[in-house]
Amino acid sequence: MSIASSIEHIIPRLYLSLKPPASLPRALPPPREHRRLFFRPLSSPIAASVDSTAIKDNARPPSTDDDTSVSVASERSLVDVNPPRGTRDFPPEDMRLRNWLFNNFREVSRLLSFEEVDFPVLESEALFIRKGGEEITQQLYNFEDKGGRRVVLRPEITPSLARLVIKQGKSVSLPLKWFTIGQCWRYERMTRGRRREHYQWNMDIIGLSKVRAEAELIHAIVLLFGRLGITSSDVGIRISSRKVLQAVLQLHSIPEHLFAEVCVIVDKMGKVSRDVIENELMTTGVSIEAVKGIIEVLSLKSLSKLEEVLGSEDEAVTDLKSLFLLAEHYGYIQWINFDASVVRGLAYYTGIVFEAFDREGKLRAICGGGRYDRLFSTFGSDDIPACGFGFGDAVIFELLKEKGLLPDLNRQVDDIVFLLDEELEGPALKIVSSLRQTGRSVDLIQDKRLKWVFKHAERINAERLILVGNSEWQRGMVRVKILATRDEFEVKMDELTAPS
Amino acid sequence: MSIASSIEHIIPRLYLSLKPPASLPRALPPPREHRRLFFRPLSSPIAASVDSTAIKDNARPPSTDDDTSVSVASERSLVDVNPPRGTRDFPPEDMRLRNWLFNNFREVSRLLSFEEVDFPVLESEALFIRKGGEEITQQLYNFEDKGGRRVVLRPEITPSLARLVIKQGKSVSLPLKWFTIGQCWRYERMTRGRRREHYQWNMDIIGLSKVRAEAELIHAIVLLFGRLGITSSDVGIRISSRKVLQAVLQLHSIPEHLFAEVCVIVDKMGKVSRDVIENELMTTGVSIEAVKGIIEVLSLKSLSKLEEVLGSEDEAVTDLKSLFLLAEHYGYIQWINFDASVVRGLAYYTGIVFEAFDREGKLRAICGGGRYDRLFSTFGSDDIPACGFGFGDAVIFELLKEKGLLPDLNRQVDDIVFLLDEELEGPALKIVSSLRQTGRSVDLIQDKRLKWVFKHAERINAERLILVGNSEWQRGMVRVKILATRDEFEVKMDELTAPS
Repeated sequence: MSIASSIEHIIPRLYLSLKPPASLPRALPPPREHRRLFFRPLSSPIAASVDSTAIKDNARPPSTDDDTSVSVASERSLVDVNPPRGTRDFPPEDMRLRNWLFNNFREVSRLLSFEEVDFPVLESEALFIRKGGEEITQQLYNFEDKGGRRVVLRPEITPSLARLVIKQGKSVSLPLKWFTIGQCWRYERMTRGRRREHYQWNMDIIGLSKVRAEAELIHAIVLLFGRLGITSSDVGIRISSRKVLQAVLQLHSIPEHLFAEVCVIVDKMGKVSRDVIENELMTTGVSIEAVKGIIEVLSLKSLSKLEEVLGSEDEAVTDLKSLFLLAEHYGYIQWINFDASVVRGLAYYTGIVFEAFDREGKLRAICGGGRYDRLFSTFGSDDIPACGFGFGDAVIFELLKEKGLLPDLNRQVDDIVFLLDEELEGPALKIVSSLRQTGRSVDLIQDKRLKWVFKHAERINAERLILVGNSEWQRGMVRVKILATRDEFEVKMDELTAPS
Repeated sequence: MSIASSIEHIIPRLYLSLKPPASLPRALPPPREHRRLFFRPLSSPIAASVDSTAIKDNARPPSTDDDTSVSVASERSLVDVNPPRGTRDFPPEDMRLRNWLFNNFREVSRLLSFEEVDFPVLESEALFIRKGGEEITQQLYNFEDKGGRRVVLRPEITPSLARLVIKQGKSVSLPLKWFTIGQCWRYERMTRGRRREHYQWNMDIIGLSKVRAEAELIHAIVLLFGRLGITSSDVGIRISSRKVLQAVLQLHSIPEHLFAEVCVIVDKMGKVSRDVIENELMTTGVSIEAVKGIIEVLSLKSLSKLEEVLGSEDEAVTDLKSLFLLAEHYGYIQWINFDASVVRGLAYYTGIVFEAFDREGKLRAICGGGRYDRLFSTFGSDDIPACGFGFGDAVIFELLKEKGLLPDLNRQVDDIVFLLDEELEGPALKIVSSLRQTGRSVDLIQDKRLKWVFKHAERINAERLILVGNSEWQRGMVRVKILATRDEFEVKMDELTAPS
């Protein structure tokens, strides 16, 4: 007897009926130039439609942001079905992609024997107050809590990590190799479709002063790319050292305290015009000759040229040469280039800095990091040598989409148990329960048409469809269909859960 | 030749030297009575010390909260090393426990063929504005963003889930079985050591009106307990239905619109005195006879008694009887009890409600949930039958600790590669790189004493210690020590990465 003919009850289909159709147009904002490692524009594969249109929330006062919302008339005052501006929901298909990426982050971290840590997404604002004029500290998502404390949805994770290292004090043995995956936030007043949150994978090594630490971090990034199917012809990692700039500043007798500020200005090279950079540098008190010297050195793309300029004893030169030698040993030399223009936008970097970029030059930096040997003293602790990187979920998804490397991740269920006859609910539930006890994922279906069940089985990639109906049950059997092969047979209930 | 005698360079140990010792006293706040499912007190195993002491942050204005901080003099103005009041850091040992619990949440969700979803931790306040006087909406962690929008660090996840279901509209096929694990927040002005955040596992079934949906949810909870080593003599699940109260209200002609408010008041039974409950009920306009009737019915602990009072045709009675029958089929009847006093504190429940509790009665509810068939219309959509539960990370960890069921989770690394002679850095890195390529987690150590390395190997449960030193390398070999058996031997580099 076939499955179809064993159906005795046809139950009407259930449908979700909602007043306003919620399929929003996937309109994209105009393309923008981004070169910063931060939140991706909305052309990314995850939740692209979130921000571009918003159903107006009648219950709230008009917003003072520039508001691109579309008002949708609804006699029942539909709540705003979109998440807050610049944030994302993760429906199942997006969540599978996110989990796939995060699992790769975790697996690479495991290979390098890093330990996972986490910190509150809400932090004290004091951790992020620093000089240098960084974009990240100018776009803090900060506010005052009800107790009058200044708090912030963290824009980055490194300060929290440093805080915990200081808190743990002598109870930890250095070096620490820690990773974390967490959400970071920013608030930009004029937000035209740009995101206010992203997730970031951080890896940090605390307590190693040698360049071997940076070499380990870059190894992690290269291993990650490899796992995602990205090759060294797709992406490269540009490397320089802040000590290059430091040497130039010393050459021109520019005081040490201007270092961070100069770095943040110089990092804008290529994003704003050279005039703007020159003006900003001179405003800080840097002479015109020094400005020219800085810009000249930053155009260098060869280590031997750098050695000619700074001398072979210069720390920037010896650090970089060490790193390139280590890269050869690790076997990832083809992924890296020296590029003196890499400075990175965070004020606290002190040594090697690096960023990964797509070789076609279409996207912002994929990830970035560097050495920050003097961050701890800004928090009032003794300094500890440290380096790390942040790897966001934004640009990497853009790149994977571009390269056709996004995996096709489907829902995956082992068994569907379909109850054909209501009075057999007892045996059906016993089957469901015992299959789950053996570790199989089981979806129990009743009150549906067989046609729906087959479509559902396909959609969720079920391995087996188990039909519990009267005609088989009278003989103590249930009907099984193997969906891949379309084989159908009857088995006793016990045999379903026996190891095959 | 032994490993010890192959050491040629003894390198000084690195130590983390910080001014203020950061080992904070694990002082606990006085025990309090909690019966709500929410944030655990600080006696929980994870990050117990976070809130009890705080190093004062000199950079910030004095707080208006009741402040139990201890001022620690520091000539270098040490930043506050604690996370914000009521929040936690997760150092590696706590993170392992958290991951262990979350992986169990995920695995049970997989067994039940639920799909993972996620939502922003920051939501529009409008989603949580509702009548009924719930504690959860009175303790919102809300604020105005810089664009003048009212936002909130979400206190619970269900409203976001409903929002996304409405947004997806007809593109999704019902029923939906979704789960999520996310952080939830609250703000209580007088916070004496109570936490402001917790993580919550949510499972929800959208689009099933039958009690079978609730039975599935309870199956998930029971499977989770089983995986954690908790038995039905440790915990039970109390079950009732809001329809019990509804029937009583109808009996006394109390208007429908008072239902949610009455439920929230009645939920406080056992937490505040009976007088307070009676007064609050009468303030809403409920007659003294009705109050007596409500309190009488809520004391029922037997379904047959309930049937006597409400009649066998009453929906509360038929729903509950169905659920108990299903529980027998699933095989978890020993976990559940009928208890009319279970109401749950959320305004939107409409039918079956349940909560898990420790049978010794020491702790607050471990998890709780119920049916919320009328939530969607409060958001302006058509109603959709739905039910779900929230399972926090707080009480379960207390219970596991109490029962001695917390697993001993150690860091786990496959190989340590220890570089004995600096000039062999090249071969050592090749070994590290190729071992990682085969999927082994590898920690590379240099500049340490052998004694430290052995201690480290023990601490991280390394399987093998691989020593790269001149004496072996001259013969093209490295030295391997299997740490469990203490076997030592020499192998060629290639043999290290060959599958054993």
